[in-house]
Amino acid sequence: MYSVHSALWLREGPCGERVRKHILRPVPKKDFDFKKVFKNVNKIKIGILGATSYTGSELVKMLVSHPSVSIEYVSSQSYAGKRLSEIFPALTKINDDILISPQEAIERNVDCVYSCLPHAASASLLLPVIDRGIRVIDLSADFRLKDPAVYKKWYCDDKYTEHPAPQLLEKAVFGLTEYYRQQIATAQIIANPGCYVTSVLLPLLPLYKNGAQIDMIIADSKSGVSGAGRGLKQITHFPEANENFTPYAIGHKHRHTPEMEQELSAAAGRPVIMTFSPHLLPVNRGILSTVYIKTNITAAECADIVKKHYANEPFVRVRESSDLPTIASVANTNYCDIAFTGGDDGLPVIAVSALDNLVKGASGQALQNMNVMFGLPETAGLK
Amino acid sequence: MYSVHSALWLREGPCGERVRKHILRPVPKKDFDFKKVFKNVNKIKIGILGATSYTGSELVKMLVSHPSVSIEYVSSQSYAGKRLSEIFPALTKINDDILISPQEAIERNVDCVYSCLPHAASASLLLPVIDRGIRVIDLSADFRLKDPAVYKKWYCDDKYTEHPAPQLLEKAVFGLTEYYRQQIATAQIIANPGCYVTSVLLPLLPLYKNGAQIDMIIADSKSGVSGAGRGLKQITHFPEANENFTPYAIGHKHRHTPEMEQELSAAAGRPVIMTFSPHLLPVNRGILSTVYIKTNITAAECADIVKKHYANEPFVRVRESSDLPTIASVANTNYCDIAFTGGDDGLPVIAVSALDNLVKGASGQALQNMNVMFGLPETAGLK
Amino acid sequence: MYSVHSALWLREGPCGERVRKHILRPVPKKDFDFKKVFKNVNKIKIGILGATSYTGSELVKMLVSHPSVSIEYVSSQSYAGKRLSEIFPALTKINDDILISPQEAIERNVDCVYSCLPHAASASLLLPVIDRGIRVIDLSADFRLKDPAVYKKWYCDDKYTEHPAPQLLEKAVFGLTEYYRQQIATAQIIANPGCYVTSVLLPLLPLYKNGAQIDMIIADSKSGVSGAGRGLKQITHFPEANENFTPYAIGHKHRHTPEMEQELSAAAGRPVIMTFSPHLLPVNRGILSTVYIKTNITAAECADIVKKHYANEPFVRVRESSDLPTIASVANTNYCDIAFTGGDDGLPVIAVSALDNLVKGASGQALQNMNVMFGLPETAGLK
Amino acid sequence: MYSVHSALWLREGPCGERVRKHILRPVPKKDFDFKKVFKNVNKIKIGILGATSYTGSELVKMLVSHPSVSIEYVSSQSYAGKRLSEIFPALTKINDDILISPQEAIERNVDCVYSCLPHAASASLLLPVIDRGIRVIDLSADFRLKDPAVYKKWYCDDKYTEHPAPQLLEKAVFGLTEYYRQQIATAQIIANPGCYVTSVLLPLLPLYKNGAQIDMIIADSKSGVSGAGRGLKQITHFPEANENFTPYAIGHKHRHTPEMEQELSAAAGRPVIMTFSPHLLPVNRGILSTVYIKTNITAAECADIVKKHYANEPFVRVRESSDLPTIASVANTNYCDIAFTGGDDGLPVIAVSALDNLVKGASGQALQNMNVMFGLPETAGLK
Repeated sequence: MYSVHSALWLREGPCGERVRKHILRPVPKKDFDFKKVFKNVNKIKIGILGATSYTGSELVKMLVSHPSVSIEYVSSQSYAGKRLSEIFPALTKINDDILISPQEAIERNVDCVYSCLPHAASASLLLPVIDRGIRVIDLSADFRLKDPAVYKKWYCDDKYTEHPAPQLLEKAVFGLTEYYRQQIATAQIIANPGCYVTSVLLPLLPLYKNGAQIDMIIADSKSGVSGAGRGLKQITHFPEANENFTPYAIGHKHRHTPEMEQELSAAAGRPVIMTFSPHLLPVNRGILSTVYIKTNITAAECADIVKKHYANEPFVRVRESSDLPTIASVANTNYCDIAFTGGDDGLPVIAVSALDNLVKGASGQALQNMNVMFGLPETAGLK
Repeated sequence: MYSVHSALWLREGPCGERVRKHILRPVPKKDFDFKKVFKNVNKIKIGILGATSYTGSELVKMLVSHPSVSIEYVSSQSYAGKRLSEIFPALTKINDDILISPQEAIERNVDCVYSCLPHAASASLLLPVIDRGIRVIDLSADFRLKDPAVYKKWYCDDKYTEHPAPQLLEKAVFGLTEYYRQQIATAQIIANPGCYVTSVLLPLLPLYKNGAQIDMIIADSKSGVSGAGRGLKQITHFPEANENFTPYAIGHKHRHTPEMEQELSAAAGRPVIMTFSPHLLPVNRGILSTVYIKTNITAAECADIVKKHYANEPFVRVRESSDLPTIASVANTNYCDIAFTGGDDGLPVIAVSALDNLVKGASGQALQNMNVMFGLPETAGLK
Repeated sequence: MYSVHSALWLREGPCGERVRKHILRPVPKKDFDFKKVFKNVNKIKIGILGATSYTGSELVKMLVSHPSVSIEYVSSQSYAGKRLSEIFPALTKINDDILISPQEAIERNVDCVYSCLPHAASASLLLPVIDRGIRVIDLSADFRLKDPAVYKKWYCDDKYTEHPAPQLLEKAVFGLTEYYRQQIATAQIIANPGCYVTSVLLPLLPLYKNGAQIDMIIADSKSGVSGAGRGLKQITHFPEANENFTPYAIGHKHRHTPEMEQELSAAAGRPVIMTFSPHLLPVNRGILSTVYIKTNITAAECADIVKKHYANEPFVRVRESSDLPTIASVANTNYCDIAFTGGDDGLPVIAVSALDNLVKGASGQALQNMNVMFGLPETAGLK
Repeated sequence: MYSVHSALWLREGPCGERVRKHILRPVPKKDFDFKKVFKNVNKIKIGILGATSYTGSELVKMLVSHPSVSIEYVSSQSYAGKRLSEIFPALTKINDDILISPQEAIERNVDCVYSCLPHAASASLLLPVIDRGIRVIDLSADFRLKDPAVYKKWYCDDKYTEHPAPQLLEKAVFGLTEYYRQQIATAQIIANPGCYVTSVLLPLLPLYKNGAQIDMIIADSKSGVSGAGRGLKQITHFPEANENFTPYAIGHKHRHTPEMEQELSAAAGRPVIMTFSPHLLPVNRGILSTVYIKTNITAAECADIVKKHYANEPFVRVRESSDLPTIASVANTNYCDIAFTGGDDGLPVIAVSALDNLVKGASGQALQNMNVMFGLPETAGLK
């Protein structure tokens, strides 16, 4: 299908400059396959660091059916030299590229680099790429927090004592597409939001933007196990995660907390502190957040505000209180479903939101951001 | 194995009133099997209504290994005439009794009747049994609420307009063993608490009893699917419940809410209203409740109070905040695990509790109550 | 590809012969929405009977992203009048059409009708549609068996005594795309193969076609629960299917058996009888078949034959014996993965195949067949 | 308690000497707790090596409720110094003993040692224990195979080249209780059978014993993930095992194969070779084996033979062909359920068997063997 879309793309984009730009861009030396040059000459060239992570393979799955991009390389430290499809047999015939080392990868010239590396490793590897002016979308936490001190408090330790490039924090744009679309369009560095973060911010931010007063926030969140990554841990060993349900780092301990508080404070215009309680859910993918707030408006008013706010958003669906979001309704999609209920007799209003932690919570939103950055239809490759 | 001791002890050594009492009890006429008479002469005779429910079959599983009881009948409306083990192949060779109809069942004379019937059906069927002075343990909601008006508000509808025996509500004892042990010992009617209810009350009641001031309660609870019963519903159809997570009746809508508020208000000495948000978890058994409270004491103080309070309880385990309860740690046991955390920077204190909805949340606690009622060791048949 | 390019390109601007051909096709009267006419004038018009089944909703999910078709109606007996997205919240904003009754549906003029109805119901409803010359793809078993007597033996009973249109059985083409592509291209009636059937035939047929001698076939198959449909049954109630694994109708009892034997016999040129043992697997989707055969060639030779045979097939992947198929590798795709192993010391050769029962096992193959029928790229809407 | 235990023990063993022996046995020096000495003086003293494995913790769960044993030590290499209940929070208040090192453990004098260590490690550590005349039940494969050459072929490699004590292989008794009860009663070394092995041998051995002729055996087995142990592997990482189903080492590759062939050959009186195909099932516990055999008798005749053969066995249930075994019916029990079907039109007869891999497939059968070894009721601690 993709050459079809590709033709479509040529028609649909506001294409003039971009096409010229692409045609003018020197074809990478390594590449003499005429067919491929021809096929990809107008495509946005993508590199993926940490391609063997769950977010990395998810990105590949989506990008291969994206009409306007070509994956130039997939990179992995531990599996360099093997084919991506050896690590993920599901990708056989979909992407059989040989994984290159991060060191080799960052030398390559592409239009956009996705980093699916863990924090610390990510920023350090991206620095030279950023210096060469290449646009990057970082799925780690390295560029999410504006304040280096806050970053240090939550992410650094004796071995990793400082952010490698605090000066870049201001330059980076927080990749919550629905809120920073304009800045994203022209940004060089996108700090893709955390999965939990997206599920908590999308229902709450419109309330602040519309002047609602919110006095208490408790986000009780539940995430599928893929959110914990591909690394082996006892808690994610099948016989221990299956038929189980586990709270962890609840209260004010999880690293996604400062990220939420930063964005909520910005929206509120005053410091916001909240309770965030993540739980491990025995499913592969999906996050559902049940968010309790004390506010001066009703659940129905909250729903109206949010419905209006997201009226034209392709990936947010506001549901009725009689039809609460569930994980099954958003799994394997880029949707975030939202509903409001509660609030009777002075009890807290309850926002419920659900998304797929690997899609809208990570790779899908990253791809959505890329679409915005390169002037592509925002839903390209996502529907 | 306390059970075995007790059994042997009853059979072997001489043993005070209980034996005399039992020996004096006339052997039911129907029973001429000498071996069975001999074997069961000193046993407490049990009848089970609604034996083909999950709570019913769970009861059977536990009672067959209880040293001091004999199951006189298992009853079922829909399956009368079939063997219990035809409905639950797992019970083959464990209990192969033929199910009798409720109508026939309630005519039988036994020492104790468990009702695993749904509300409304339960009270109506139990009335004649209660009239004959037989002790009953009702796992339905029919005798839990003291106020008929509250019962009517939450449980009645056009077809079922009134509680069949409001006069009995006062007489019934709420079967939260750890709190009503003394009344249970002499009660004729036990209203066995709801599964969610037990998980929310056990961590909170000791705080009230110790004079803590609690200004807000939000119970975010997650339950395994067996809690929804054996009846077929789309939401519990495997392909729709599996890989899913669903909030339902959240806020102040679920029928377990008034039960919690009744007991919390009694403990607080003033009306308590709370938020209760149940969620459907894709596991067979287990409930985990994450309970947020605004209180004048710290999480550590809460833990100390609760630890002291339950020091001698065989089925409550208070854990450290570094070792939060999980569903896997309590599944298939009668334990309720509890821990406290949170409360920093004025944020709510968080109580986490976990239990098995079919055991401590239903049949296990029912059996624990029976042990108390008949002066048996409280852990008999439960460990 | 070319025809699709222009098919798409057509939407935007004027074009050559193909357009005339399209423009000559009468626009259904009911349709006066200019925008929709314009947008869909060149699209293949689709109707779906039984849209609220799992195969039906899966079809909708795939068809909405197919570049060359438009869904004209979705139909359901039980839910007529409701929106499809009320039954499947996941389809909100994807397809919010109102379900029409089958009676109304079969009156509509479309280019192609998919039937996701159960057997018996399906054939009866499709007859008038077939009479009007509309092309149909039947996902039920009604047109799969060539011999009415065999159909009667396996599918009829006292209430449903005869196939409603035995004369059509010969006319229908068995929709195993890889084997009947040519006949499918011009067929009016496609009998889409059973899910188990596809997983068993794809590894075995090439062996027969290449003259291998096969003396025994035992297919031990395991299927996800969606294969049992959306109808509520005790065996698919979550607490009974979860953490369970159940053999059913094993040996020579399952209705997919005659279908396999018909195709294997045709390929062998002699009657083939086989053992087929289905098992219910606690996953939502996927079938894995472990097929034991006595043959005169080695597993390696089998693999070579099958690899060659499927070299140009877009949806069959032949794996090494060191990299056996798994359900996770094919879930949510139209791939069937195949590998061969075993056969040492005169033991049986073992074929392992895996596919997604709702995709390659049903709706995906149905869509693949539609692509063939209408001269579209075979992978359109499937990758 | 004391009188109970001794009463029980006195009554039930064929006791003369053993009682004297126990009463005369010097109390281990380390132990001065009068109460404990008094309480356990007549109990069988147990040591467990590898207590932090799944089979080890399962053993502990069962032994703590066994009336006639006391756990003297739990041992672990990796966790020595920690409490067992720190590793398994579910065991809190059930067994909070501190884990000792294997080196310290093997110095202790107990009546019986269970080894839940991996092969190789197990035999080496058990040698000194065996030399001191202590009875051992080895759950590893080290003593299962009579022929050192076969052991070497399947278990040894460059690093581990030879069985550490081949001379003991003949002395060891294969712990399939139903077949070697007599030898087990007096054995010093029990080689507890593999989980898959038990599920395949129990349905087949009675057929051989009754002179049936069996010409082909194909065991298609499916096991829950706990069978793969607590060690972390990618294949048992939750997101990769969940919603998946994986064949592995199928054909004639899995290490349980020689064990089955050894016992089947012994029963057949001639070398038997078979196909064994294990699959990884996304459940925590349970094995279901679908076994295809070519035999000269019918499925009904097989069922009769097996029913008669196991008529008095407490832990084997033979089911009707209309009521095939399932994993849910045996999970968390020591039962092995068996049924026969198939065999029509010369097709293979099919035996279906199910058991819990951690109970009848490992720790439960080990405990059953201990009961036999020490003259205790065979069901003690198991029902």
